[in-house]
Amino acid sequence: MKKILVFGAGRSATTLIWFLGDHARSEEWHVTVADASGDLVQEKIRNHPALHGTEVDVQSAKQRSALIGAHDFVISLLPWTLHTLVARDCLRLGKHLITASYVNEEMRALHAKARKKGLFFMGELGLDPGLDHMSALHLIQKIKDEGGQITSFHSYAGGLIAPSCDTNPWHYKITWNPRNIVLAGQGTIQYRHHGDLRLIPYHQLFQSAMPIAIGDQDRYEVYPNRDSLRYISMYGLSGVPSIMRGTVRVRGFSAAWGALVQLGLTESQTPLGVDKPLTWEELIAGFLVRDVNLSVRERCADFLQIPAHHVVMDQLEWLGLFSDRPIGPLGLTPADYLQGLLEEKWKLEPEDRDLVVMEHRIQYHSGREGREIRSSLIYEGTNKDKTAMADLVGLPLAHATRLFLRGKLKGVTLPVPFEPGITTPMLDALAGEGVCFEERYCSPHEAASFHHLSS
Amino acid sequence: MKKILVFGAGRSATTLIWFLGDHARSEEWHVTVADASGDLVQEKIRNHPALHGTEVDVQSAKQRSALIGAHDFVISLLPWTLHTLVARDCLRLGKHLITASYVNEEMRALHAKARKKGLFFMGELGLDPGLDHMSALHLIQKIKDEGGQITSFHSYAGGLIAPSCDTNPWHYKITWNPRNIVLAGQGTIQYRHHGDLRLIPYHQLFQSAMPIAIGDQDRYEVYPNRDSLRYISMYGLSGVPSIMRGTVRVRGFSAAWGALVQLGLTESQTPLGVDKPLTWEELIAGFLVRDVNLSVRERCADFLQIPAHHVVMDQLEWLGLFSDRPIGPLGLTPADYLQGLLEEKWKLEPEDRDLVVMEHRIQYHSGREGREIRSSLIYEGTNKDKTAMADLVGLPLAHATRLFLRGKLKGVTLPVPFEPGITTPMLDALAGEGVCFEERYCSPHEAASFHHLSS
Repeated sequence: MKKILVFGAGRSATTLIWFLGDHARSEEWHVTVADASGDLVQEKIRNHPALHGTEVDVQSAKQRSALIGAHDFVISLLPWTLHTLVARDCLRLGKHLITASYVNEEMRALHAKARKKGLFFMGELGLDPGLDHMSALHLIQKIKDEGGQITSFHSYAGGLIAPSCDTNPWHYKITWNPRNIVLAGQGTIQYRHHGDLRLIPYHQLFQSAMPIAIGDQDRYEVYPNRDSLRYISMYGLSGVPSIMRGTVRVRGFSAAWGALVQLGLTESQTPLGVDKPLTWEELIAGFLVRDVNLSVRERCADFLQIPAHHVVMDQLEWLGLFSDRPIGPLGLTPADYLQGLLEEKWKLEPEDRDLVVMEHRIQYHSGREGREIRSSLIYEGTNKDKTAMADLVGLPLAHATRLFLRGKLKGVTLPVPFEPGITTPMLDALAGEGVCFEERYCSPHEAASFHHLSS
Repeated sequence: MKKILVFGAGRSATTLIWFLGDHARSEEWHVTVADASGDLVQEKIRNHPALHGTEVDVQSAKQRSALIGAHDFVISLLPWTLHTLVARDCLRLGKHLITASYVNEEMRALHAKARKKGLFFMGELGLDPGLDHMSALHLIQKIKDEGGQITSFHSYAGGLIAPSCDTNPWHYKITWNPRNIVLAGQGTIQYRHHGDLRLIPYHQLFQSAMPIAIGDQDRYEVYPNRDSLRYISMYGLSGVPSIMRGTVRVRGFSAAWGALVQLGLTESQTPLGVDKPLTWEELIAGFLVRDVNLSVRERCADFLQIPAHHVVMDQLEWLGLFSDRPIGPLGLTPADYLQGLLEEKWKLEPEDRDLVVMEHRIQYHSGREGREIRSSLIYEGTNKDKTAMADLVGLPLAHATRLFLRGKLKGVTLPVPFEPGITTPMLDALAGEGVCFEERYCSPHEAASFHHLSS
């Protein structure tokens, strides 16, 4: 009997917890789910006979190490800032640990110590980071095995809403961390194109979105992620002239989001210093030139240099930016107010199904021939609980757990899922769950249109 | 014999230290100057018979409290993050303390404890914050004493270069903290105009600069500071329809600085991930659309939507943005590279004199009559050591010290120089040093042009 401990029972833990419960008997697992909220734990384990729940204060060293000490294998879905607490205990108590979070320098150092003790520590085992690495590296390896020379690597991903549940003019609902949605792209955006460094300042990022098709769905657009350059060394792409990772949205989203950025509504550092509650219309009017002859919507269109009947203006109006709705309590930042509004307007309804799309596009030379291969995943959630996000974060963690406990990951040495010894069995196992990447060589015409992207 | 301790012997301490030395004998002061750098201390005290110097590690509790314990009155010019260390020791050891830094919540709490012990703790006793408060509040009080009702409060300040030393097309050199110059204005800018909240997002701030004259010098422009709204409660201006504090530059600066912001060169969060050193031209080209038929300067002008021969392009060219000069070591942020460049190109030369300008403009009703009064300071430094900055930070600290030690500040209770009991004697003393605010009532024509500012 192997004893598995899951830290965190939030949204993205659902599929993982249910998988562990459903396989506990056949795999001979004892599974405990621990969270700061005992109610949340009970809601997730739903009286499943194989699942045990407990409330825990993870900041309490005593509670934490008692719990970890009583198990063999720990899966942490806690906020990443808490991982090191858990990791230090696992190291001390001799327990294995996996997470879905980025492996930072501190976690990397703990991994090195864990390896010496014969422990399995691994991060980046969720969707992004996680599935993105495994599927991209699998494709890169395949091309290298064929003797191909890679000339361009593009990789796109997005958490969206299923077309049949797309009921608003933004074609978007909140299926993951709303704070990260509001702050997406802040910083200097950097990637490489035809051998040149390409940089975009944040306030111009969303205007740079380009239309793309993913799989057979010609309804998307993509804008570059903050830092694509670090994937050069991570993925062994040194010398590859074009490298970009991008965020996918349904077409029309980015232009409107760019308008929110232009207005300054994503700024997260400055609490507004007004002394009475404002409406959204008053807040927006604050950013605009005063003109008593024009409505706030008209002045906003002038500010954005678009016609007042432009679809972007309809998207802003739908959000309620020109309404007398109060923005919220005094003393918050523009980003706080925007987040509060979006959490209501973009709320996932009980029957809504989310959608995750991911596509890697790699161009390469094989002999004298230029080729392009695309590998894409289009994955719909089942409902508000069993979301695509929860499946695609949970299933990689679940299968990594099962593979390890079955003794199938013996040769793996890195703290991230980069080696064929883990990517191959993981992708096989995930395909068995319906998480399938479709690969295809694309036509010269399609490849040509790709060449123009972001040029 | 009163024992005075000065913490910090940097640029802004020069005038203060010399003043204390020159008045030590007549005032019966024993003056010690302490800094992390013993060399800097010796350079500043210059064998002055009344000045004692010592090297100190202010992080060392032992060294710090030994030094503080041996004095009566402490003046801290340390970075503000270190003030609380010094303040806690002063409180414990029963010593008076003044600084030129903003009084934050923590310092405010320490001030309250100090008052109970009969100690004099005060911050914001430099130029800005410091002289700005004293001169503005003096004017506000004067109008209120006349029974005037304030309708508009504007206050402008800038650290500049004397016209005769203005030798570059930016009309600017570095006379204060270069990091603050690069990051100026980041956040959401907020002020009040004709009763309305006005907001400006950072990336549009510098385009909002408006030409103004200060005193008889019609060569300036002003853009709003980050947060003018907090002065409503600070200065007792509740209900005043127009309130703005602004930064003064020589005309033409802000349009060019705005171009740097548009390019993304002031972004301070994202280390560039390139694997080989770049030139400035390569860095700038990274932000621009590729076009082999156009020079980087031409493409930059297109990006900024200005003609290639525009004066802003000459300012950028003068900085070396289109040159093959290396940007610096790998792995820094755009703001780091820009700061390094500016520290060289905008360097203050030994014979350069800096210039501080400050002007308050208050409109008010007195009976049925509408009036405007302006109070302005135009103050030139003497040379690279005795700068206007050093004078205008050091002289308020020096005179606050002398006034207090002479027993002239007995009725003062606040932790900031806001009460007539300190502003009046301070402004009188400073006027004796040549730090004079010229007050004048302005003509209806001038007042009218003011009405249009930032409308």
